Amino acid sequence: VVAFSSGNHAQGVALAAQLLGIPAVIIMPADAPLVKLDATRGYGAEIRLYDRTRDDREAIAAEIAQSRGATVVPAFDDEHIIAGQGTVGLELVQDTEALGVALDLAVFPVGGGGLIAGASTAIKALSPATEVWGVEPELFDDTRRSLEAGERVAVSPARRSLCDALESPSPGRLTFPVIQRNVAGVVAASDPEVAEAMRYAYATLKLVVEPGGAVALAALLAGRFELRDRTVAIVLSGGNVDPSLFAQVIERRL
Amino acid sequence: VVAFSSGNHAQGVALAAQLLGIPAVIIMPADAPLVKLDATRGYGAEIRLYDRTRDDREAIAAEIAQSRGATVVPAFDDEHIIAGQGTVGLELVQDTEALGVALDLAVFPVGGGGLIAGASTAIKALSPATEVWGVEPELFDDTRRSLEAGERVAVSPARRSLCDALESPSPGRLTFPVIQRNVAGVVAASDPEVAEAMRYAYATLKLVVEPGGAVALAALLAGRFELRDRTVAIVLSGGNVDPSLFAQVIERRL
Repeated sequence: VVAFSSGNHAQGVALAAQLLGIPAVIIMPADAPLVKLDATRGYGAEIRLYDRTRDDREAIAAEIAQSRGATVVPAFDDEHIIAGQGTVGLELVQDTEALGVALDLAVFPVGGGGLIAGASTAIKALSPATEVWGVEPELFDDTRRSLEAGERVAVSPARRSLCDALESPSPGRLTFPVIQRNVAGVVAASDPEVAEAMRYAYATLKLVVEPGGAVALAALLAGRFELRDRTVAIVLSGGNVDPSLFAQVIERRL
Repeated sequence: VVAFSSGNHAQGVALAAQLLGIPAVIIMPADAPLVKLDATRGYGAEIRLYDRTRDDREAIAAEIAQSRGATVVPAFDDEHIIAGQGTVGLELVQDTEALGVALDLAVFPVGGGGLIAGASTAIKALSPATEVWGVEPELFDDTRRSLEAGERVAVSPARRSLCDALESPSPGRLTFPVIQRNVAGVVAASDPEVAEAMRYAYATLKLVVEPGGAVALAALLAGRFELRDRTVAIVLSGGNVDPSLFAQVIERRL
């Protein structure tokens, strides 16, 4: 299989390939967090680095797929991937049912939109009254803009976000209509808000959360949602963060 | 209530007092981790600092208890505290039963011995075949030495351990006979092994674990237990670690 990913999808595909005993080539940005590169390599995958600003990762993937007869596993714009992400929504509904409470609000990090498209589909099927919201990094608020415009629009920020996992320039062709149908809205979280959420997870939840995984918590802590008397689920979608960055965040050097 | 503690028991007592609406005075070492001081204060307790090398914290507690008519809640050498810690053992047995597996080995951090005394009592009652081991910091291996000697002995190391939560000089009067009866043995973990365990928890488990909370994991990763074909439970008993120390550990500056 061939996949391209900033890191978390990369690890998932590499592990799945290892478990199935098939070779995997993962196309990752050269400036991806070292922990993501190491972990992907640790699952036995071959890594091809690309330049985020110059190279076309989809073209590289297509070329490798053709020359090796491999299948491309996209990071989000794929029915199977979306369905797989749906299990997160399924588990949220099951867990709140087991607790005997109604799930009023569920909040998800949004990059290309695979997670929120899949999870919201499961939630809306099982618990139609649950409101689903997405959160993007401030600079990569393409899904929020697309929802406003009523069509997919792309952003091209001049600088990087703290959230390496969520730097998708536009929602997916498949994910966007699902998001339009299921999601009440998408808000943005700034880098300082994301850092504050990582510190909260560190100090209070005792969890290591990477920037992209912390956007939903960041928006919640920043007061962007009505919480009073509501049962709220937020998803922390990754904990792969280089020690140097994590140290900067918790020591408030960032 | 009055309690003395390096920090984790302090928070427990402070929170319990807050929930019950009664005042709490906590006697803590002046060099306790800031996060533990802040958290204890955050639960509404009054904090009295003492000098670890000079003051007698038990005497301070007795004096406050007498002058205010308060009850002393000891950190480990107390039947109710030991019984409360027993719920950890109870939950471990219940959780492994729910998974349909037999618990072969359970490993606990050991300071004054309250946690392992309580937990091992519950485990031995419900699952007599489970082996229980303890782990101490290398410099504070008073329980290991006491088991060897067949009686309580005290240590007086020349320097501090990384594990601020486990610097008890000797096992408790009540905890020691329980440990003698229930525990297969106690081993030690060095500061570098503890740091390595904290990095493992950070990178792989995505958990923030404080030094004293990581000793059981440290001993396990250092190969001190036979793991092959066995179901093993280890307890990570705290995550209150100052950001500056956590940063040093994950960046390998320590």
